[in-house]
Amino acid sequence: MKTGILGGGQLAGMLVMAGIPLGFDFTVLTPDSESCAAQHVKLLLSDFTDKKALHDLADWSDLITFEFENIPAESINYLERYTDVRPGLKSLKTSQDRLHEKEFFSGLGIPCVPFYPVNSLKDLHKGADILGLPAVLKCRTHGYDGKGQVVLRHIEDSESAFNLLGSKPGILEKLIDFDREISVVAARSISGETAFYTISENIHHNGILHFAMTKPCDPVQEQAEFYARLLLEKLNYSGVLALEFFQTGDSLIANEYAPRVHNSGHWTIEGAKTSQFENHLRAISGMRLGSTALKSVAATVNLIGSVPDRAQIPGNSNIYLHDYGKAPRPGRKVGHITVCADNMRDLGKLVPEFLIRQQLMK
Amino acid sequence: MKTGILGGGQLAGMLVMAGIPLGFDFTVLTPDSESCAAQHVKLLLSDFTDKKALHDLADWSDLITFEFENIPAESINYLERYTDVRPGLKSLKTSQDRLHEKEFFSGLGIPCVPFYPVNSLKDLHKGADILGLPAVLKCRTHGYDGKGQVVLRHIEDSESAFNLLGSKPGILEKLIDFDREISVVAARSISGETAFYTISENIHHNGILHFAMTKPCDPVQEQAEFYARLLLEKLNYSGVLALEFFQTGDSLIANEYAPRVHNSGHWTIEGAKTSQFENHLRAISGMRLGSTALKSVAATVNLIGSVPDRAQIPGNSNIYLHDYGKAPRPGRKVGHITVCADNMRDLGKLVPEFLIRQQLMK
Repeated sequence: MKTGILGGGQLAGMLVMAGIPLGFDFTVLTPDSESCAAQHVKLLLSDFTDKKALHDLADWSDLITFEFENIPAESINYLERYTDVRPGLKSLKTSQDRLHEKEFFSGLGIPCVPFYPVNSLKDLHKGADILGLPAVLKCRTHGYDGKGQVVLRHIEDSESAFNLLGSKPGILEKLIDFDREISVVAARSISGETAFYTISENIHHNGILHFAMTKPCDPVQEQAEFYARLLLEKLNYSGVLALEFFQTGDSLIANEYAPRVHNSGHWTIEGAKTSQFENHLRAISGMRLGSTALKSVAATVNLIGSVPDRAQIPGNSNIYLHDYGKAPRPGRKVGHITVCADNMRDLGKLVPEFLIRQQLMK
Repeated sequence: MKTGILGGGQLAGMLVMAGIPLGFDFTVLTPDSESCAAQHVKLLLSDFTDKKALHDLADWSDLITFEFENIPAESINYLERYTDVRPGLKSLKTSQDRLHEKEFFSGLGIPCVPFYPVNSLKDLHKGADILGLPAVLKCRTHGYDGKGQVVLRHIEDSESAFNLLGSKPGILEKLIDFDREISVVAARSISGETAFYTISENIHHNGILHFAMTKPCDPVQEQAEFYARLLLEKLNYSGVLALEFFQTGDSLIANEYAPRVHNSGHWTIEGAKTSQFENHLRAISGMRLGSTALKSVAATVNLIGSVPDRAQIPGNSNIYLHDYGKAPRPGRKVGHITVCADNMRDLGKLVPEFLIRQQLMK
């Protein structure tokens, strides 16, 4: 199966690693010759908007997918004329615009934080009035890892907040108190089969995911799956998708979804019977989905800034290094470690130890 | 860690897949542009004897290893002048010559089948007389997958047997009745740490391994580890090694060893906490060894001739496909399937089902 991937980061790299044993052949389109997927696969170096390159990729591929959601929708639209792109345009476009995403959630009855569209300073004032402060003003598009958002605590800061985000169309979201953040990674195949991984509890720091820990038998698993299934069905989705929630009390409030494999699901490589990467490829290519059952409880610990010395990785342990092959840089996600354990107690002990050792707990 | 690999088959491919997440960078030297490792990594196309290419590889590499044992010893000797080659020359050379290998086993007190060196037809007669018939006449070098050997049942067939193997230096080995074939995959790091995987019981057909099934808590595990440890120590070995045995009653009789990752250990990718491929790289690069403990009981089923249609792979199961990306050809090892199960009873049920489905049980 000749599969084109748009985007050349670590997600593309891990898709390739999962697909080669299944007999997939890959080409990665990326504008960046330093893409870390270059370790694994041939790159087609080009902007995502270059028609010639897109056409070449479509021509070569039986199937195209993408590893991040900021691919221009017009490019997907163009590619869909020539070949199958999975997940398709609707799933991508809805996730690209925070307003459309929230409206889509609301339309399906998936609870989300109260929000108000902001096209002008006047809208912002009105929104602040309706929702109450504090609230978060976010760009509608191109936000990730905490970028493109500002917390508004006092109405008199409205103008500077609006200016800070470049006076672009935005969305004001009520800042809610929540008990924790969780996500569910879900898969749906082209024949409509669905599967769900064990939810993870996610800890962010400066807007970047720092660790994600599986929560087997959690009371909100069923609720998370219910909303994720609804989303998959209504998007007529194929592939893997991650749906992030805030939890307050017993209730889940959808935050956003990513129409792709997701950082909070990296633990599935070692911790689940089938990784999210393999299941994404199974889902989009007409294979049956692999089992999402746990092999062991597991956590993903992101490596921010630099990768530890390999010689420091303990032996004979349940610690698995994933070095993305990126140059070290403060604040950059350069790899992750999966920690597996026989039970949550052991996992709870191992993970903080690792966080401290990696100086992630700053 | 820049690591050169001599040989570009599936073993090189799986080493690369295991090494990339650990931050290894690879170059594969192979004479064959169709090498299946080409899916994963840049190839240096050259004969194994080309000094210029060897020098280029040594120059680029921090470390060199090999994926099969028929690399000319002179090439390893040459490379060792410029960089570290692990496992080294002695481990390779001893395994390349069946006579030296058996003499080495005997010298260490590792039981092996009675044997007799054959340099002439006269030697063959004498050997047949001493060992008794039936016996197997084997080439001393370059035999694999049942090639380069002939069973001698009647003394009057000696001349034709000797001619059949090209009148080359050989070894006559007593053909013994055995209950089963097993192997142990073992690792030793450069600091001398050792680790052993659960033994596997191996079923061959026409000289090719068809399946290998883990045998946890087997009474001969300890005996197999004892001999393997002895071998690792006396070779001052670094890397992964497989030692194959015949078992008769409670006793193990060493057949041969492979100074590399081994087909009977492919199940470790899904079935063990650390795969043989990762542990080979850990062992040769100064890392601590990873745990060899079972994640689940597992078996490797080789795919001979062709790979099944991906759409036929059952979903939601414990079946893992490894397609080597080779052109199908009768008798060719083109991939393998790992079957995992919670217990031996389930594994026993799954594996025959798969063997039958793959028409391996002919």
